[in-house]
Amino acid sequence: MVAHCAALLVLTDRSVYLMFVIDFQTHPDRYRHWRLGVDGRVATLDMDVDPDGGLHDGYKLKLNSYDLGVDIELADAVQRLRFEHPEVGAVVLGSMKERVFCAGANITMLAGAPHPLKVNFCKFTNETRNGIEEATAESGQRYLAAINGTAAGGGYELALATDHIMLIDDGSASVALPEVPLLAVLPGTGGLTRLVDKRFVRRDRADVFCTIEEGIKGSRAVEWKLIDELVPGSVFDERVADRANEFADASPRPADAVGVPLTPLDRNFSDNGVVYSSVTVTINRSARTAEIVVKGPTGPAPSDTEAAGSAGADWWALRAARELDDAILHLRVNELEIGTWIIRTEGDMEAVLDHDRFLHEHDDNWFVHEVMLYWRRILKRVDVTSRTIISLIDPGSCFGGVLAELALASDRTYMFLGTTEDDDRTAVLALSESSRGVLPMSNGLARIGTRFWGDDEGLRAAEETIGTSLDADAAMQAGLVTEIYDDIDWDDELRIMFEERTSFSPDCLTAMEANLRFPGPETLETKIFGRLTAWQNWVFQRPSASGETGALRRYGTGLRPEYDKRRV
Amino acid sequence: MVAHCAALLVLTDRSVYLMFVIDFQTHPDRYRHWRLGVDGRVATLDMDVDPDGGLHDGYKLKLNSYDLGVDIELADAVQRLRFEHPEVGAVVLGSMKERVFCAGANITMLAGAPHPLKVNFCKFTNETRNGIEEATAESGQRYLAAINGTAAGGGYELALATDHIMLIDDGSASVALPEVPLLAVLPGTGGLTRLVDKRFVRRDRADVFCTIEEGIKGSRAVEWKLIDELVPGSVFDERVADRANEFADASPRPADAVGVPLTPLDRNFSDNGVVYSSVTVTINRSARTAEIVVKGPTGPAPSDTEAAGSAGADWWALRAARELDDAILHLRVNELEIGTWIIRTEGDMEAVLDHDRFLHEHDDNWFVHEVMLYWRRILKRVDVTSRTIISLIDPGSCFGGVLAELALASDRTYMFLGTTEDDDRTAVLALSESSRGVLPMSNGLARIGTRFWGDDEGLRAAEETIGTSLDADAAMQAGLVTEIYDDIDWDDELRIMFEERTSFSPDCLTAMEANLRFPGPETLETKIFGRLTAWQNWVFQRPSASGETGALRRYGTGLRPEYDKRRV
Repeated sequence: MVAHCAALLVLTDRSVYLMFVIDFQTHPDRYRHWRLGVDGRVATLDMDVDPDGGLHDGYKLKLNSYDLGVDIELADAVQRLRFEHPEVGAVVLGSMKERVFCAGANITMLAGAPHPLKVNFCKFTNETRNGIEEATAESGQRYLAAINGTAAGGGYELALATDHIMLIDDGSASVALPEVPLLAVLPGTGGLTRLVDKRFVRRDRADVFCTIEEGIKGSRAVEWKLIDELVPGSVFDERVADRANEFADASPRPADAVGVPLTPLDRNFSDNGVVYSSVTVTINRSARTAEIVVKGPTGPAPSDTEAAGSAGADWWALRAARELDDAILHLRVNELEIGTWIIRTEGDMEAVLDHDRFLHEHDDNWFVHEVMLYWRRILKRVDVTSRTIISLIDPGSCFGGVLAELALASDRTYMFLGTTEDDDRTAVLALSESSRGVLPMSNGLARIGTRFWGDDEGLRAAEETIGTSLDADAAMQAGLVTEIYDDIDWDDELRIMFEERTSFSPDCLTAMEANLRFPGPETLETKIFGRLTAWQNWVFQRPSASGETGALRRYGTGLRPEYDKRRV
Repeated sequence: MVAHCAALLVLTDRSVYLMFVIDFQTHPDRYRHWRLGVDGRVATLDMDVDPDGGLHDGYKLKLNSYDLGVDIELADAVQRLRFEHPEVGAVVLGSMKERVFCAGANITMLAGAPHPLKVNFCKFTNETRNGIEEATAESGQRYLAAINGTAAGGGYELALATDHIMLIDDGSASVALPEVPLLAVLPGTGGLTRLVDKRFVRRDRADVFCTIEEGIKGSRAVEWKLIDELVPGSVFDERVADRANEFADASPRPADAVGVPLTPLDRNFSDNGVVYSSVTVTINRSARTAEIVVKGPTGPAPSDTEAAGSAGADWWALRAARELDDAILHLRVNELEIGTWIIRTEGDMEAVLDHDRFLHEHDDNWFVHEVMLYWRRILKRVDVTSRTIISLIDPGSCFGGVLAELALASDRTYMFLGTTEDDDRTAVLALSESSRGVLPMSNGLARIGTRFWGDDEGLRAAEETIGTSLDADAAMQAGLVTEIYDDIDWDDELRIMFEERTSFSPDCLTAMEANLRFPGPETLETKIFGRLTAWQNWVFQRPSASGETGALRRYGTGLRPEYDKRRV
């Protein structure tokens, strides 16, 4: 398969060449699959997938089926609605295809995709759906699904991510999760979990529903809690509009605020990384590591929220967030063999903390609040990223405020003890209010809450450091870093650690990290990533689904799949 | 590989032949790998694995490494201590090998085992370890681990299942989870989960610990919470004995009660099933179903606890439990292709409810309490069994009390509506106090709590039926059954349903059921089965672990494993 959607011009020291990568940046003007409309307080986001617009060759995106490219546009739209449209209080997710809402993930794409791409695709689509739920819960942009026909598999799962599901009552429109009977894989975008844990569908009914290829329609869909409203075809559009207006009226979004345009990112790809204005990614291919350096702000925080709004996408807090997010997504999907991410920061700690304070002081401002929510989503993305994440806190770094959360999101954190011959700066770590719980992990806990799970005293001690700058000894004492090394040991110890990490089985690290990162309570989100995804990964590998004669490969051939009959 | 531990004499209508199955029944007199000793209030359970006593050919169980056969003996010992030794309040888990506690699961066995056997092995060992924790928490038999040397992998995980870990301080004894660096698989017996969720080891330390092949010893092991006590070699035995006596003294177990011997089961295997005194398993190989019929008691409940104790293993409540447990284990490991279990009951509902009432009235009696705890464990085993479980409530059945929980543990439950031409009995379902929460699922909820998760009204309505016999309409109304059919539809509808179920991918059903069965909260146990197991299943399938050049296969060959470098 050849990616043809994202040919990036790359400048190296020797030449200019085209690099084919999956690009997560897009704009409504360039959407091929969605129509975004805003009418006062209500936005409509209509799916109209271009069958020929697949990210790769070899499949046609019929019946509003989707691939990663379609979902990248959806994620972009959801994101833009939050930043560019403060006035919008309700979003109607609909379809422009007749009698079809969405047929879910494209099967031919899934059948042909290599395992890592399938898994990455599921992860991103899950994050996008979680983002839709977060917009509803935290941003006052309440999503509703207007299902005008068939909503099958990922199509119904998309609807499940909204807060209110309306189904047209035309005798044929239905919701379905036909994966199990048809494809021998799971509904992998949260469907199983959302059925029983969000919509509280009884487990035996969920079992029945998940085995009915054609799905469920009409009043039974309401009775089983699969949808919220069944609406006659004659009044469907009208009733959807009424409901959207009702939701918008109840929304706390500021009707008269001015949106912040998400301008194109300033970035340059090269063979060994990407350079953004505040983030630099440097790949070491032989070591299979990527160093991600986040640079702190060069000036003080905005003087007030108006200034922040005027700075908009140029404001460091948003700019660095967008760049970091893009870097993470790029590395995750385009650099599969780069197994370890080294996170560093560079800059003036006081400036970082100044911007961080601003974020907290003005959290009642819609825009500032959105920036903070964005950091929350990015940090959650780090948490579920299948790469070893190591933070290095060295002299000149600025792990403070929101950036300190990057250190806490890491599998391990190493801190430089003392000074070097040439540099009399010491490394510091500074937790702020950002570590208290406004940036929760998907288990609902602050990262220090997770770190000190079961250790109340440790947690209290860590909380007491909030507002203080800690040197290596103090950070180690507070249990906030894994290990500290001085100038003599730093390079050697880290080199050995990185070499060792790279020598381990990449799969096994993925599985281990997924287990160790989330102690404590579980939530809908952790169930989706920790339980559902793990089972789906397993099923994706099994011959009954992905083997030559498996259901995914046999789908559409007229041949029946062959299954390994043993229960495992 | 040939199973040589369990050659069962099978009588068919044509001949007598030997059937090779893995047998879960054993007795201390026949143990090859453990020494069970009881001295007053303290029991010692010493591991002394016979290298030549593997369940299959092709590997040697060196250094107290274990296979399923070793764990079957352990499970038997834990079970017998509960029933046969009411006086025991503390159990010391130790080793008879010098400087070796336990090397964990045998690698050669794992490398050679087919996927379903590996997974079944892990499931059973997890259940055994959960049983150890339950004995500590619910039965007043507190387990402690006396680690006299190396406790690696599953060896350390076994220690993690105890309530108190003592490590000898001899300069070399250590605890380790070397799976990731050495074998490219996870510690699969709860190790990762117990580290962070039971012992509250900080996540970055857990990450470090899980990558150190040689493990951690000495004071660092205490500091990191990997063990509870570090004890000098010179006083190790003495200090362990002191601790055990201290635990035993604090135990509520009755020092002067008389134990109940777990006599050999009355059972007959045949080619198409097993017949026990109260349980009959009939396999339909072409349909790939097993019908499990549990027969109710033929007489009234014991007159008092003394009578119950005298009846002992013959008392229906214990006898049926042991037979059902054995049947489940047999089907799980020896009948992999039998993907659907049909659960039926036969007998006098009043008699079942009479015994059920007895269980609740005398729950303060240690033996009666143990019987109830045993039902709890069996029902949990059903919950995590990778088979489709369908209960059929038909005329003549006795789904009441503890047996009603079997219906609630099923993926679906079908109930017969009305009567047949030849039989004027109607089907009834009768919840008792047993459904209120004394038999919780591993998520900590009663089965009706799980069933009506998020539906408080439904839960209240279901609870209100407790003590009432429900006919099909009433059971359907209360949401306690999936579907009801009358005489005209019953056979056809069920036939179609079973045929359809059998046509689905067995793997996919396993994954779907694992997700739908556990809505609501998660616990250490659900994390082990739902998250850790799923990731391990995935890793077990991946080439980096189990492929020709994977770590499991290359272990001990001197060759380095080859890994797929892509992160997934």
